Amino acid sequence: MKAVILLSGGLDSSTVLYLAKSEGYDCYALSFDYQQRHRRELTAAKTIATAVGVTAHQVVSFDLSLWGGSALTDRQIDLPQDRALSAMSESIPVTYVPARNTIFLSFALAYAEAIAANRVYIGVNALDYSGYPDCRGDYIDAMRSVFRLGTKQGREGDPIEIITPLIDLKKTEIIQLGNKLGVPWQQTWSCYSGDEVPCGTCDSCLLRLAAFKELGLVDPAMVG
Amino acid sequence: MKAVILLSGGLDSSTVLYLAKSEGYDCYALSFDYQQRHRRELTAAKTIATAVGVTAHQVVSFDLSLWGGSALTDRQIDLPQDRALSAMSESIPVTYVPARNTIFLSFALAYAEAIAANRVYIGVNALDYSGYPDCRGDYIDAMRSVFRLGTKQGREGDPIEIITPLIDLKKTEIIQLGNKLGVPWQQTWSCYSGDEVPCGTCDSCLLRLAAFKELGLVDPAMVG
Repeated sequence: MKAVILLSGGLDSSTVLYLAKSEGYDCYALSFDYQQRHRRELTAAKTIATAVGVTAHQVVSFDLSLWGGSALTDRQIDLPQDRALSAMSESIPVTYVPARNTIFLSFALAYAEAIAANRVYIGVNALDYSGYPDCRGDYIDAMRSVFRLGTKQGREGDPIEIITPLIDLKKTEIIQLGNKLGVPWQQTWSCYSGDEVPCGTCDSCLLRLAAFKELGLVDPAMVG
Repeated sequence: MKAVILLSGGLDSSTVLYLAKSEGYDCYALSFDYQQRHRRELTAAKTIATAVGVTAHQVVSFDLSLWGGSALTDRQIDLPQDRALSAMSESIPVTYVPARNTIFLSFALAYAEAIAANRVYIGVNALDYSGYPDCRGDYIDAMRSVFRLGTKQGREGDPIEIITPLIDLKKTEIIQLGNKLGVPWQQTWSCYSGDEVPCGTCDSCLLRLAAFKELGLVDPAMVG
């Protein structure tokens, strides 16, 4: 059985890839070079894909900085630093990239149908990133209808399912799952900056650091 | 008011662009270079966009030939020639590109939200291309839910609408609409091949030729 796994190279998507592999799927990883601020995460994605032993790893390139609209694609917009965790879930942050998950899932759908896969795994999480509209369950359900109705495979009764194993997990629970699966955390990359080591101050680093700390662990990726 | 218009440079999408313009929208045209068999249609899109007077015309590039799966992206698959019109609507043809409209609409959604547009126009047609799963009304309705739930703009009560003015029209009715709007047919390009003049034998040419003939007209694009 084949599955397409959306892989950014971060903590969440790496855990999802290891999970799909542990469930016995032939894993086809899919990453994107969308002119994000840095490509450090693509290096991480490649390393993780090799480590788990994927069948294939495709990187699709396009330019989402054409029209801006996000701190992740527009270097004119400052990244938030040292925010309280509570502030991250209050509103849609400047790191929101318009329609990013919709674009990612669309390519995953195309890839899945072309190789006759039955599943697309995505590591969205509705708790830690509750500000992002395209990480929530009702949105994913709408995409499920698209997957069913917008493809030959779906119309012919063999739809491609969207699997979201992390959607209701806390970050600490994701780390516990990843620990069981043996995810090599030191190879993953979650930081919004593209320095040699994670900044430790962006929203993404702070969420990750807090979760490892809560579990009484040290994040191996944060050890310089 | 701003609208994003998906523009392939063919008869249908050109008519939709002229319609949106006639309705008073500032038109932001969006085309794709996806490693289709030829780029002749991109030249047509540019010409049409200039002719109608768009506010902007973006071309997003990516490679859908990475994984094949369609005669339009895989040169190993022959294009159908000289098929009866009735045969075109019976099954999903080899020119179907997995998830193509989903990918196109996803980018249109991203563009629309980044520029704060309220509408995305797409020239899908459920009659002439009834074999394509991603040209039908129930699929478009599923994408409407995605547009509403998957964006900041939608979550904040100002959703981006998908407008499908051609969905229930016959090709002859589309041509009549385009004639009223003054669409310069000779500048449009519908042929699946990329020669100097349309082949006149592919599904797309045959549909177009038959419709002009039914109206007692000559297709200006077919006059060599």
